Amino acid sequence: MTAERIAIRAGSSESVLWVGLGVVDDPRRYLSSPSGRWLVVSSVNARAAAGRLRAALSTNAILEMEIEDSEETKTLDTVREIADRAIEAGVRRDDAFVAVGGGVVTDVVGFAAAIVLRGVAWNAVPTTVAGMADAAIGGKTGVDHRLGKNLLGAFHPPRVVLIDPSAAATLSDRDYRSGLVEAFKGAWIADPDLSDRAESRLSAIVARDEAALLGAARVKAAIVAADPLEEDRRRLLNFGHTLGHAFEAAGGYRDLKHGEAVGWGIAAALSISRDRAGLAEKDATRIRSVLSRLGPFPEPVRAAAVLGPLLARDKKANARGLPGVVLEAVGRARVEESVPVEEWLEAARSAAIG
Amino acid sequence: MTAERIAIRAGSSESVLWVGLGVVDDPRRYLSSPSGRWLVVSSVNARAAAGRLRAALSTNAILEMEIEDSEETKTLDTVREIADRAIEAGVRRDDAFVAVGGGVVTDVVGFAAAIVLRGVAWNAVPTTVAGMADAAIGGKTGVDHRLGKNLLGAFHPPRVVLIDPSAAATLSDRDYRSGLVEAFKGAWIADPDLSDRAESRLSAIVARDEAALLGAARVKAAIVAADPLEEDRRRLLNFGHTLGHAFEAAGGYRDLKHGEAVGWGIAAALSISRDRAGLAEKDATRIRSVLSRLGPFPEPVRAAAVLGPLLARDKKANARGLPGVVLEAVGRARVEESVPVEEWLEAARSAAIG
Repeated sequence: MTAERIAIRAGSSESVLWVGLGVVDDPRRYLSSPSGRWLVVSSVNARAAAGRLRAALSTNAILEMEIEDSEETKTLDTVREIADRAIEAGVRRDDAFVAVGGGVVTDVVGFAAAIVLRGVAWNAVPTTVAGMADAAIGGKTGVDHRLGKNLLGAFHPPRVVLIDPSAAATLSDRDYRSGLVEAFKGAWIADPDLSDRAESRLSAIVARDEAALLGAARVKAAIVAADPLEEDRRRLLNFGHTLGHAFEAAGGYRDLKHGEAVGWGIAAALSISRDRAGLAEKDATRIRSVLSRLGPFPEPVRAAAVLGPLLARDKKANARGLPGVVLEAVGRARVEESVPVEEWLEAARSAAIG
Repeated sequence: MTAERIAIRAGSSESVLWVGLGVVDDPRRYLSSPSGRWLVVSSVNARAAAGRLRAALSTNAILEMEIEDSEETKTLDTVREIADRAIEAGVRRDDAFVAVGGGVVTDVVGFAAAIVLRGVAWNAVPTTVAGMADAAIGGKTGVDHRLGKNLLGAFHPPRVVLIDPSAAATLSDRDYRSGLVEAFKGAWIADPDLSDRAESRLSAIVARDEAALLGAARVKAAIVAADPLEEDRRRLLNFGHTLGHAFEAAGGYRDLKHGEAVGWGIAAALSISRDRAGLAEKDATRIRSVLSRLGPFPEPVRAAAVLGPLLARDKKANARGLPGVVLEAVGRARVEESVPVEEWLEAARSAAIG
């Protein structure tokens, strides 16, 4: 088995991505713990992958804990529970967490690792497509608040991210396809060649060709490495997420998967991109057509009375609106600093896929 | 009024200390908020200083909140309450907190600032001697856990620390004198000249000569600047704190003030310093004599059955014991990496002041 190594440096810290089929079966070779001791937190949905890891780590695991991988679990209470269990287990500063699961698991475990003993190391083993292409890479951890998503959190990059497409084998088809939205997003904002290649191989990708995940992970890694603290280029990764988060919240985090909500958010951002960045209609059509193949996505709530207040509470809001990522072309994006809420609401009303 | 400016650089961030009588009355000149908006959190005990600040800031204060300045308040629940109130007030990433009070207030507000929106700016206005000499400087924030002190937290340096001795005018004599333990600690570990000067002026200092606080703040600033993440030199600041924390916990955080517990911890560390670092008896006597003038401190719990489990749960514990700061002489300290728990317990049994 050969694994590819991608290093992301962020100030004095470094994350290493190990990308390859089967890396999950050899965790002692790839994961990092200064003490050699592990605190393994996995999700109910990731039992298969967690079992493969635990077989190798269990003799030095001081904590094995299972949590739900649902948006309702992404709270400060869950972080506190993980921290409590870690402290009860006698965690020391040189131990390391291992998070095995989807984006919710890596977000809450990473946040717990950030605040336990003022910060211990952690490793991410994403088991969803969105986790591999996006969520587990880059060090943004956090939890939701009743007033909005990700309002509490920390920048705390994992030491190691294991990206093993075989860990996603047990995903449902809907989860797999909606997760691909984040993978394509990475290509659309930053990599025209990857966009071309991925679109031409769309059928194989939807049929779970693992190579697609690897390309997306590389795009994200390159963007994060260039801007670890989200002051500039990394903001492009929010493409589709401003309305995406609002759609997701409006559906109570049940009606739409995260990737589906982002898919609708991207569809809406296409019209803002046309108006503000001159995106050509043929480029918008390409993207809508890919989204259509990843769907069908359930219809989102579009009512201004629902979305307006959600947008106003977005943590990126400023006095004149919200920053929005717009595409100038497939593979090239930029940030518009202040898009008025009215313009977002109009884009939400008219968003179409396919 | 002239104020002294001391800058502490830590990687990409910078803390500025403004030191001088009356700086609290001119907060708009010294405090930092990118947006110009403030979230002021102060303690019940710091109403006088908070009132002086608020008079100047209130037109742009989006939150004014009062909390208790007691160790029982130093919990994740308080951090959550501050974060909730900030989010409800519509906090944005470019706003800034202002913490006005003792070490508990700066610890919990700094921690809240670290996790709200993944980190917003904050300013510290310590109103206790220990806060000015130690707690508010350096960016270690945190809260207690039922299993130990400061087990949850973050490194998140304040943008600005205002050190205004007049803000401590309303402190009780016991609070003032016990706080001086932290000020003297700074001199004893790192600055033989300051130790000499402070000891020779002890009567004036105990009578609230403000200059003493300024010297101590400078020592702490210099140490933090040399080692912001506590990987090396900064660990010396823990002198007296290993047993100090245990004494404090054993007294239920009520029987002993933090500074008093640290005073006992320093007294105990003197015997370990003699055995392991050759500290001369005359140096130990000097220190005991200063501690005696800052006291009398209530007698601590010394029972091994109580202190042993508290030491074992110290977050700095390793497989062979706990790191301990020892003095080689007045003004010169180093870290012993692994002092066995038995040795700590013996030092606790025999610690004497005066």
